[in-house]
Amino acid sequence: MATILRVTHLWKAQFMFNSNAYAAASATSPLASTTIARRDPAEHDVQIQILFCGICHSDLHSVRNEWSEFMPTVYPIVPGHEIVGRVTTTGSAVTRYKTGDLVAVGCLVDSDRTCPRCKAGLENFCPNQTLTFNSPDKYLGGVTYGGYSDSIVVDEHFVLRVPSNLGLAGAAPLLCAGITTYSPMRHWGVTKGKKVGVVGLGGLGHMAVKIAHALGAHVVAFTTSPSKKDDALRLGADEVVISRNTDEMKKHAGSFDFILDAVSAEHDINAYINLLGIDGNLTIVGVPPKPLSVIAFGLIAGRRSLSGSNIGGIPETQEMLDFCGTHNITADVEVIPIQKVNEAYERLVQSDVKFRFSIDMSSLRSE
Amino acid sequence: MATILRVTHLWKAQFMFNSNAYAAASATSPLASTTIARRDPAEHDVQIQILFCGICHSDLHSVRNEWSEFMPTVYPIVPGHEIVGRVTTTGSAVTRYKTGDLVAVGCLVDSDRTCPRCKAGLENFCPNQTLTFNSPDKYLGGVTYGGYSDSIVVDEHFVLRVPSNLGLAGAAPLLCAGITTYSPMRHWGVTKGKKVGVVGLGGLGHMAVKIAHALGAHVVAFTTSPSKKDDALRLGADEVVISRNTDEMKKHAGSFDFILDAVSAEHDINAYINLLGIDGNLTIVGVPPKPLSVIAFGLIAGRRSLSGSNIGGIPETQEMLDFCGTHNITADVEVIPIQKVNEAYERLVQSDVKFRFSIDMSSLRSE
Repeated sequence: MATILRVTHLWKAQFMFNSNAYAAASATSPLASTTIARRDPAEHDVQIQILFCGICHSDLHSVRNEWSEFMPTVYPIVPGHEIVGRVTTTGSAVTRYKTGDLVAVGCLVDSDRTCPRCKAGLENFCPNQTLTFNSPDKYLGGVTYGGYSDSIVVDEHFVLRVPSNLGLAGAAPLLCAGITTYSPMRHWGVTKGKKVGVVGLGGLGHMAVKIAHALGAHVVAFTTSPSKKDDALRLGADEVVISRNTDEMKKHAGSFDFILDAVSAEHDINAYINLLGIDGNLTIVGVPPKPLSVIAFGLIAGRRSLSGSNIGGIPETQEMLDFCGTHNITADVEVIPIQKVNEAYERLVQSDVKFRFSIDMSSLRSE
Repeated sequence: MATILRVTHLWKAQFMFNSNAYAAASATSPLASTTIARRDPAEHDVQIQILFCGICHSDLHSVRNEWSEFMPTVYPIVPGHEIVGRVTTTGSAVTRYKTGDLVAVGCLVDSDRTCPRCKAGLENFCPNQTLTFNSPDKYLGGVTYGGYSDSIVVDEHFVLRVPSNLGLAGAAPLLCAGITTYSPMRHWGVTKGKKVGVVGLGGLGHMAVKIAHALGAHVVAFTTSPSKKDDALRLGADEVVISRNTDEMKKHAGSFDFILDAVSAEHDINAYINLLGIDGNLTIVGVPPKPLSVIAFGLIAGRRSLSGSNIGGIPETQEMLDFCGTHNITADVEVIPIQKVNEAYERLVQSDVKFRFSIDMSSLRSE
């Protein structure tokens, strides 16, 4: 690839190279083939050839600017934050990775590293974090470009190691769906002997079932689709409840230690709050389009709590990958070539995937 | 008092005596003088001459059947669960109290004492608890009658000891307003070095400010009424924020470890969730009339939690009373005779009290 020089709007000279990518030009445009600039690796940077990139629902939300109130999209956008690949170049000061290593990049590519949150390993809550896509790019100006691309350059602090026993297509979604479900379960004490509910059997929910099972919990999967019952049991659920069946729901009233709610569609969260036992916690990781309507009595009766969680810090993301390595956990994926990404988005809206799309990025290099 | 014998609807013979009380005959009736039956003390019972009874907003809700969906009121109702008094008789097996002791009774007069919650000292979450008023009375049939009365008979397990240094009129509200605010602060780790918010400066809120201050926290009181600023500072707040001033609110964004929300009126809870720091908790102890509208992003951005809390268990209620004894904490009360209780209710609706009414029950005996 040709090295090119650009003087950015930040007035910093920066050596760059071109990378193939898929980008959307507007909220109503399909993703299409394009060329983007990546910085040449600086001394702490790792350059990665991307092998697989998972498709997260937030890719779609960002592409279509559906979160404009909180995170308006800057176009063109190159989404993708479930990245696995192989190290191709390392900066002179890189100590943790070498060429050929299997590595991963998740939702974050930088943070200030000095704030109390960063010092606590909670880069996911750093006020000055740089997201993998659609965040201001302090090197090149504009915004960061994500994983729907054949390469990426990331500071080694934000690069993770992928256990060698994991299939790479299924490992990619661990970087968002995996950590998003692992982190709150660790935080709220999911262990052997706990009763854990998982609401929604999509990309996040299916990971939550696998991880909760591996943590030793008694796992109950909630779904509106009777057709998903066998899948849930196969993924590791001990029981499956069809959430539209109020009698089935009632049987579990007041019995859960923890419930992970991974449903982004509007739904009655009180039905699940009422299933929590004393001091039980329900954590939401999906973002429904309207505010949640929460009945105060449900929280008060049992000192229950409702909380949110947002991916995880870098140390915990590595911990999650290692845990998945130990328990041989990956996402159930349907591998697609990048050329089918727009079709995959349409199917994602219809929940027509078991359970995550993973883009084989070799398809991009063969274009 | 004459001892009378009644065969209850539970077909148990029970010796009883009459007690003067104030009761409401319907949701639209004023409270009025009446006579009620109390059981003669059984072997584990303590008979108490009631000296003061605080007026809790839930007395009013119950009298007017405003919580009919969750706890329909059975009439006549004798409310009152902030009771302090003096032991006048003890059953043969009572070991912890003797005639003349200053004691208190809160929101609970019985529970099953065998469930895991009771065994953990969390009688407040026992599924078979007996509330001090408007709960099925397993001795006499009908429902239990509360503290707007000149005496009450309670199993010693549910009787608390009042520290001798506390003024009794102001000690009465500790039994509900005190424990309701103390318990979640203990549960969520309020200590020295923590930043604690208190929303609403009514009966509960003013206790929360005093207790949080005594626990060593940096206390910020939120109020819609600039006129309450001086009161809040006097009660122990380090800062007072007028919650309608968005600039003042913004200054505190993301900074609180814990916020206690004691507002029963409809209000925007998201404005306070956004003031929480990482892992911050907001606990509601008031029950607004409509479901809370909660924006998911507010919880997700910072792993924040929203929870409820409901009084406290018996051991923690004693701990709270002892804590208040050590720190010389009582409620700020306006003492009224029972004959003014209906007027007090009207003033309570208008928030026209600083900060709790306490009924001097000697007024009932002089009728």
